[in-house]
Amino acid sequence: MMKRSDCEALDARDPLAGKRAAFLIPEGLIYLDGNSLGVLPKAVPARVMEVTEQQWGTTLIKSWNEHGWFDLTRKVGDRIARLVGAPPASVIAGDTISVNLFKLLGAAAKLNPSRRVILSDSGNFPSDLYVAQGFRDLMDDGYELKVVAPDEVMDAINGKVAFTMITEVDYRTARLHDMKAVTAKAHAHGALTIWDLAHSAGATPVDLTGSGADFALGCTYKYLNGGPGAPAFLYVRPDLQDKVQPPLSGWWGHAAPFAFDLDYRPAPGIIRNQCGTQPILSLAALDAALDVWDDVEMSAIRAKSLALCKTFIDLVEQRCAAHGVKVAGPRSMELRGSHVSIHHGQGYAVMQALIAANVVGDFRSPDMMRFGFTPLYTSFADVWDAVDILARILDGREWDHPQFLAKKAVT
Amino acid sequence: MMKRSDCEALDARDPLAGKRAAFLIPEGLIYLDGNSLGVLPKAVPARVMEVTEQQWGTTLIKSWNEHGWFDLTRKVGDRIARLVGAPPASVIAGDTISVNLFKLLGAAAKLNPSRRVILSDSGNFPSDLYVAQGFRDLMDDGYELKVVAPDEVMDAINGKVAFTMITEVDYRTARLHDMKAVTAKAHAHGALTIWDLAHSAGATPVDLTGSGADFALGCTYKYLNGGPGAPAFLYVRPDLQDKVQPPLSGWWGHAAPFAFDLDYRPAPGIIRNQCGTQPILSLAALDAALDVWDDVEMSAIRAKSLALCKTFIDLVEQRCAAHGVKVAGPRSMELRGSHVSIHHGQGYAVMQALIAANVVGDFRSPDMMRFGFTPLYTSFADVWDAVDILARILDGREWDHPQFLAKKAVT
Repeated sequence: MMKRSDCEALDARDPLAGKRAAFLIPEGLIYLDGNSLGVLPKAVPARVMEVTEQQWGTTLIKSWNEHGWFDLTRKVGDRIARLVGAPPASVIAGDTISVNLFKLLGAAAKLNPSRRVILSDSGNFPSDLYVAQGFRDLMDDGYELKVVAPDEVMDAINGKVAFTMITEVDYRTARLHDMKAVTAKAHAHGALTIWDLAHSAGATPVDLTGSGADFALGCTYKYLNGGPGAPAFLYVRPDLQDKVQPPLSGWWGHAAPFAFDLDYRPAPGIIRNQCGTQPILSLAALDAALDVWDDVEMSAIRAKSLALCKTFIDLVEQRCAAHGVKVAGPRSMELRGSHVSIHHGQGYAVMQALIAANVVGDFRSPDMMRFGFTPLYTSFADVWDAVDILARILDGREWDHPQFLAKKAVT
Repeated sequence: MMKRSDCEALDARDPLAGKRAAFLIPEGLIYLDGNSLGVLPKAVPARVMEVTEQQWGTTLIKSWNEHGWFDLTRKVGDRIARLVGAPPASVIAGDTISVNLFKLLGAAAKLNPSRRVILSDSGNFPSDLYVAQGFRDLMDDGYELKVVAPDEVMDAINGKVAFTMITEVDYRTARLHDMKAVTAKAHAHGALTIWDLAHSAGATPVDLTGSGADFALGCTYKYLNGGPGAPAFLYVRPDLQDKVQPPLSGWWGHAAPFAFDLDYRPAPGIIRNQCGTQPILSLAALDAALDVWDDVEMSAIRAKSLALCKTFIDLVEQRCAAHGVKVAGPRSMELRGSHVSIHHGQGYAVMQALIAANVVGDFRSPDMMRFGFTPLYTSFADVWDAVDILARILDGREWDHPQFLAKKAVT
């Protein structure tokens, strides 16, 4: 059986271990919820203060040009593009995932106007399904949202599908769709593809260009550590960009926003997918949060991510097997994202006990404890300690662990 | 002719004069662009740091509940509601003006499904027209955007109009629409009304309840000083709220977002108009910026606003008459918002000269210099100094003003 010293040895050999120092990790906290809200990069507070006090406070309106506020959505977009296998000028940051999804639903629908089936799966994040339902009901024009099981997506692609709307990594099971295969089959049947990268960006090596994906969008407050509710991002394949008819056609997507023409004229390229004025403080925090990624290759992230997840799964199966826990999602690591969910009949209560012991994951109904592994700052020792505490809670021996003793000494 | 000492006397009697100390006003700057980006309230930086370092940095994911992040859109909405004559639980903050406008276009269209005319005017902010054009083209269902001159709106309301989409205060001329009269005529003809309060909120005493307006939306980075790109707000008349079918139906508007049902079910009340996860740093800055409003009555704002505008217009006409300047918009102060635009053939160049002299307004094509008067921090002496410098620039005597002498001494 693996020992803590084995995990410490893995940490000693980890090429990403030095990155942990770039983040604020509260003392004693084992944070396995970076797939929901990433921790604070140390570069962020100074940048937010500079933008607030210096730029807004003293340069005021001139900052839109002098401090590059207008270009921030593009600059941040380009930084994210590198992490998801996309070329420069194909990604913009801004708005929320849900709003960006609506933009892409409208764009895809107009590019495939004779079809009415939107294909998705039951492993999609529900908000994506809600947005598609809202789109369908607004259009009132025969659109059908077809939701199949994740394993059935490939077979459900046919000549009636206008576009697929798939989240690459399942937010509960971590099941990973094959973006390249799904896209290829969709294209073979004349369908377009929209990929939600919420649990992929910064966690798995996405290859938007190589897969031929038509549209994508994603989240920056999870693995990219952009802060609570940080602006989302959106991708359009370069050859499609000038064909997009934006359904949310605001002035930030206009070819000449300061001409104040009365008629909309979309900007060339990715810019037309912008709509209204973006929240600069939150965008600047995101920009600063991305600094830590500049010298990181996603292949290194993936290697450590899989090792962390494998270590966790192995330890859980070694130490918690007696308690009827069951790991969700595929057993093959290559078919998984960067989090692990465990089914347990008392999952909610057990997660509360973990949080009380300073091991933070989250719970997803009906019965899943979810643990996110963020290669930039999660250590193998974290994984060992988390499972150690989980095992003690399940065994009813939580009282003999140092984390509890430390807490008791304080309270 | 009015002297500077007259303006100083007005400042001495100004009941709002003490509010200026709540803002960071850079030394020597006469800032008349608060109708574009309000100055920094001194309460903001500490709040932003608290949210960044303490809440995000140390409480992390638990802050959604412990620090009220989830409720911030409602809390901020209620604070804004008081300033626009709306009851609690009728306003939410979030997203951008353009996105919120799209939500309301969809809502209004579904509530008046047999009609196809959207009535607006050429004094509307162009982005609103762009969003309506995008809506029309997306729907592809016979919608017509009818744009008339501002003076013709009342006459254009008839039984074909589904809803009006009007910005209350014209972003160029400051012309003020009669919200109550337009709404009454619209209702008499079976039409709904959407009001854009971008240049009204915090500037004029809006009475959403009293006017019977159906929908409204607005901006918080102008007179409300929420910061660059601060989240916008949205209002739905209480009796309509549960009838709204949200076109942007994300999880934040779901009745039970954490049940993760596959089907959308709108939350009761105003909440259903929310869509995706909001940018908390920017929302927190806005919340802190609203502190300064808590003891302010909009009637006091209006009284000072009109006095500032009147002083400016009088001084411009007294001192700049020889240079062919012409004040835009109505002459009656009661028909105006809180900014003044001046037509001048060399408006762009003159505005650059003003900015070089530390008097910051902005330029709106084709020929308007625009000056915003923000009663919380603009003084009557500011107005006098701004016109003094404007007059010297137009007279070709800019070199003999202390602002220029001070600059020369430095450079």
